[in-house]
Amino acid sequence: MTEIKNVGFEDIAITDGFWKEKQDLFRNVTLDAIYQRFKETGRFEALKCNWKKGMPFEPHIFWESDVTKWIEGAAYFLQKGRDAELEARIDELVEDMYHSQEKNGYLNEYFTVVEPEARFTRRTDHELYCAGHLIEGAIAYAEATGKTRLLEVAEKYVALIDRVFRVEHSAAFDTPGHEEIELALVRLYRYTGKKEYLTLASYFIEMRGKSTRDTCYEFADQKNMQSHLPVREQKTAEGHSVRALYLYSAMADLAMETKDQELLDACKTLFENITQKRMYITGGIGSTNRGESFTFDYDLPEYTAYSETCASIALAMFCRRMWRMDPDARYADCAERAIYNTVLSGVSLSGDRFFYENPLAADPERNAFNDERPEGIQEHLPILQRVKVFSCSCCPPNLLRMVGAIADYMYSVSEKTIFAHCFMNADATIYLNDTRICLEQKTGYPYEGDVTICVQSDATFTLAVRVPGWSKTTEFYVNGEKAEPEMQTGYAYIYRKWEKGDTLLLKLDMRVKLFAAHPKVKAVCGRVAAMRGPIVYCAEQLDHGVTSMRDVRISQKATFSIEYTVLGGEKMALLHTMAEKRMIRQELYQEFPYQTEKMELTLIPYHAWANRGITEMTTWLLDEMEA
Amino acid sequence: MTEIKNVGFEDIAITDGFWKEKQDLFRNVTLDAIYQRFKETGRFEALKCNWKKGMPFEPHIFWESDVTKWIEGAAYFLQKGRDAELEARIDELVEDMYHSQEKNGYLNEYFTVVEPEARFTRRTDHELYCAGHLIEGAIAYAEATGKTRLLEVAEKYVALIDRVFRVEHSAAFDTPGHEEIELALVRLYRYTGKKEYLTLASYFIEMRGKSTRDTCYEFADQKNMQSHLPVREQKTAEGHSVRALYLYSAMADLAMETKDQELLDACKTLFENITQKRMYITGGIGSTNRGESFTFDYDLPEYTAYSETCASIALAMFCRRMWRMDPDARYADCAERAIYNTVLSGVSLSGDRFFYENPLAADPERNAFNDERPEGIQEHLPILQRVKVFSCSCCPPNLLRMVGAIADYMYSVSEKTIFAHCFMNADATIYLNDTRICLEQKTGYPYEGDVTICVQSDATFTLAVRVPGWSKTTEFYVNGEKAEPEMQTGYAYIYRKWEKGDTLLLKLDMRVKLFAAHPKVKAVCGRVAAMRGPIVYCAEQLDHGVTSMRDVRISQKATFSIEYTVLGGEKMALLHTMAEKRMIRQELYQEFPYQTEKMELTLIPYHAWANRGITEMTTWLLDEMEA
Repeated sequence: MTEIKNVGFEDIAITDGFWKEKQDLFRNVTLDAIYQRFKETGRFEALKCNWKKGMPFEPHIFWESDVTKWIEGAAYFLQKGRDAELEARIDELVEDMYHSQEKNGYLNEYFTVVEPEARFTRRTDHELYCAGHLIEGAIAYAEATGKTRLLEVAEKYVALIDRVFRVEHSAAFDTPGHEEIELALVRLYRYTGKKEYLTLASYFIEMRGKSTRDTCYEFADQKNMQSHLPVREQKTAEGHSVRALYLYSAMADLAMETKDQELLDACKTLFENITQKRMYITGGIGSTNRGESFTFDYDLPEYTAYSETCASIALAMFCRRMWRMDPDARYADCAERAIYNTVLSGVSLSGDRFFYENPLAADPERNAFNDERPEGIQEHLPILQRVKVFSCSCCPPNLLRMVGAIADYMYSVSEKTIFAHCFMNADATIYLNDTRICLEQKTGYPYEGDVTICVQSDATFTLAVRVPGWSKTTEFYVNGEKAEPEMQTGYAYIYRKWEKGDTLLLKLDMRVKLFAAHPKVKAVCGRVAAMRGPIVYCAEQLDHGVTSMRDVRISQKATFSIEYTVLGGEKMALLHTMAEKRMIRQELYQEFPYQTEKMELTLIPYHAWANRGITEMTTWLLDEMEA
Repeated sequence: MTEIKNVGFEDIAITDGFWKEKQDLFRNVTLDAIYQRFKETGRFEALKCNWKKGMPFEPHIFWESDVTKWIEGAAYFLQKGRDAELEARIDELVEDMYHSQEKNGYLNEYFTVVEPEARFTRRTDHELYCAGHLIEGAIAYAEATGKTRLLEVAEKYVALIDRVFRVEHSAAFDTPGHEEIELALVRLYRYTGKKEYLTLASYFIEMRGKSTRDTCYEFADQKNMQSHLPVREQKTAEGHSVRALYLYSAMADLAMETKDQELLDACKTLFENITQKRMYITGGIGSTNRGESFTFDYDLPEYTAYSETCASIALAMFCRRMWRMDPDARYADCAERAIYNTVLSGVSLSGDRFFYENPLAADPERNAFNDERPEGIQEHLPILQRVKVFSCSCCPPNLLRMVGAIADYMYSVSEKTIFAHCFMNADATIYLNDTRICLEQKTGYPYEGDVTICVQSDATFTLAVRVPGWSKTTEFYVNGEKAEPEMQTGYAYIYRKWEKGDTLLLKLDMRVKLFAAHPKVKAVCGRVAAMRGPIVYCAEQLDHGVTSMRDVRISQKATFSIEYTVLGGEKMALLHTMAEKRMIRQELYQEFPYQTEKMELTLIPYHAWANRGITEMTTWLLDEMEA
């Protein structure tokens, strides 16, 4: 097993370009927008554990995790620039949690004030999930500020959990209904070096699917929480997609820490199943709202895709763990697919509104009809415009921590090799054994395909640069001279005695490409989706005077022009091409062939959809083969 | 308003061909199959009103209507051939109903034994719907056998209903939640000549949407029962599709009896909305199981189509009423579309198994996945194999009465004109004023396009023959000589002094045609369906070695060969052509263009689907335009 260390975002400064703008937006808008919504909805007040029956804002089983995830996200921004006002806000929350913690270490606002008698008895109720996010928030805040009070709280709580679950088995169940604590515990082990945290993580992971006391929701089944089988025996991605990917991330973490090849192989099998059979082209996962879950191979309906923002965040997290053991470009391809499309679709271009579900197509008429119906005969449909807050608000703070620490996705390093995975405009400091190496990366990615990595140190090492799977004609230049590096599982390996100022230029194939899904994906047979680089494109009706975007046909010979523009404050590249639409006749059923006419088609990045009002949207367009 | 009389099936003998075989099957298999299932499930026993709490087979609110509809269907077969054994069975049921009827005339098995205190208080509970079917069954049985006992029971009950609803308003609601009694009352008026029945029908129809006491299901709304507006103001087909079409049929009946042009216009508007915006190509209606209802214009999803067998029967019933006031071929086109496709899909080729829902496409993998899921996260999907009985078993006896009286769809007659609507191999006796005219029709319809009508009487009249909308190149021959009749709204008018032995030969255009739906039908953009004559075709996976029927593409230049064969005991024509399928590659997302290969495509009549086991089915195939 290859063992590759992560280069943390704390050692990387994003200097310009796409992610600099996104981080600025998140720092200036999103961070506070989420804070204000959480405040208004009583999520902060609840930490005080003062709630009593009859009072408004009864604490909810997962509210606490919203807050600690927000703290985690905020901490990533503090890591890049301390801010007394923001820290004061967080410190106040930390104080509340400190005071709410019980002597034995227990800390959960819901079970403290609403159902104290039910502690550690209800597997389905997010108790350990909240503990996991507490751990992650505590570590992040400690790392960013050196303030360890929340970390102490977290460790004290973990000691209780360890005793109750692993030692005494005195809880009413064995493994959490919603995974999260497992990966948090590995993280806590890595941060503190305390082996017991890894032991507890391993206990929760390995016990899964083996316990006789692990109940599940009445309406669902063990698959929904990935406890239908011991984790090593799971071959297909099942159940609630966020839970699944948090679990797989933890499995990868554990495999890495314990050099467990079998567990790594289980992770690889799951990755294969997801990416080859159960993932939207946007990197979305979870094909149905029923159980917010995976369904079956090739079942990828567009309009009712669940494709939760958090699930794609978790998918990227899983990928990042996998490439540290198995340097294969497919992991970073998958992470980018998730991040640039579904994850970013989760937030408005204005930074203050959010999607939980990210469907591949939107039919406002269907939503309008459904919204007008009595509840009893409504169907569940994704909303078509982002909102400021959800009652279940996991996604907004998850986005915050994702964007805050996005540079985590850039590099990893082994003994002799620096791996460059995702491309961003950033300066990194990387320790290759003990040699400090500075890399400056310059790129207009994801909208331009030139990536320059300038080595700002003298050192002999291999630079292994990922070549995205979609880049068919990649060129490499070292100090301006064309190079032919050795390729291995999607990475270009360039071994060299690098001198300060040496540059590697990667020219990626940025032609617009049309993709078809496997013929078994019934939802989109006869359709194609456009991608340019890692960006999936979609078409919105408001850019077109057509009756139905579903009826627009794009030819294999379509040529595209690129329009660099600003939409909703974000710099992006739109695509223009000629397409065909049908002439409208009134009859419901009309003899074929029909008459068509040319039309100008504008495609926008999928993640930018629904930023200009409610309008029909489709990612998959009719295809036209040409002889 | 044109006033055209119906030529009843009792004056027509189906002698050969498609409908003779279907009627024989129904007489020999279906009639008894339904009887046995109803017997086993306690539906007959319940008529005795002996049930008490704790006993098995608690009567259900609509069980009674299943029985009376079966009696109605059985009566249509008795009309063509008395049968002591069958009559004995029916007489026994009639006796039970006679004895169960209360002194004041009340008769409803559910409200008699289960909730006697709730009589005439719950609009949603099918009380008047059952009364309607009682009336229809009673009339049919009296007509067939001369036995009037059930009719007396029905009339006695109607007298009570009239008093309680129309005179006293002492019921807790004003109009039935499930329409049916309205058209039954018009029928009773026609049969008995008693004006009060028309008055009561008119009361129920006109009161609809005006009452302040008409409640609806908690889970649904007034639209679901067509009481959101007074019926004359309704412009779109809304709510439960069977109820809707029973209502529209009654409206048409009332318009006819009262020569009410405004009401007829309301019916025309509804017909337009259905056939131009809310009807499947198979003549199915009702796009969702949620409320078993119409949804919104152009919303015609395939896999989740509700398309209830009963709804298409009711649509045909509505059409047959409309053509008596408005001789426009679109009504018969629509009736045939419904009958030859969705209605017949409702019954297995073996005659003893039934579909309630008739989707346009079937995905066994989706059903299998769904069936394995816990109920709480299952979705509602149509079943993919016909069953012997449903808990809600309205469709099987509805099919029985439809097929038994199918000849009702052949002819109508005005003062000077005989209209020939639907084509069947049958001898009819028609009274044109007082002249008795015999017409012998010979045809291999629906699989052959030659229709010969031989006039077996000397008489001067106009024979107005429907030319189906799909027949683009129809030829007419009178006694072998080509004729150019005057065409008017789809009918060819041939005025002539007919002599015994004169023939009109109609040569319909039986070329296979591909149809596309309006571009706003998002579900099937880029797809076409094949029709030949009135028959819609579909493709089943078991005839093809392909991965996915959804990925099969058919060219506008496709040429078809016709294979006359027998499938499941039924003579039918299959279609064969060359089509294209994609070569299979494993990747989930593959760069376009893809490689395709030729394949032989076999299409079977839609109504014959799912008779050879569970297999993937699609009606809409990918289309390919050719330059």
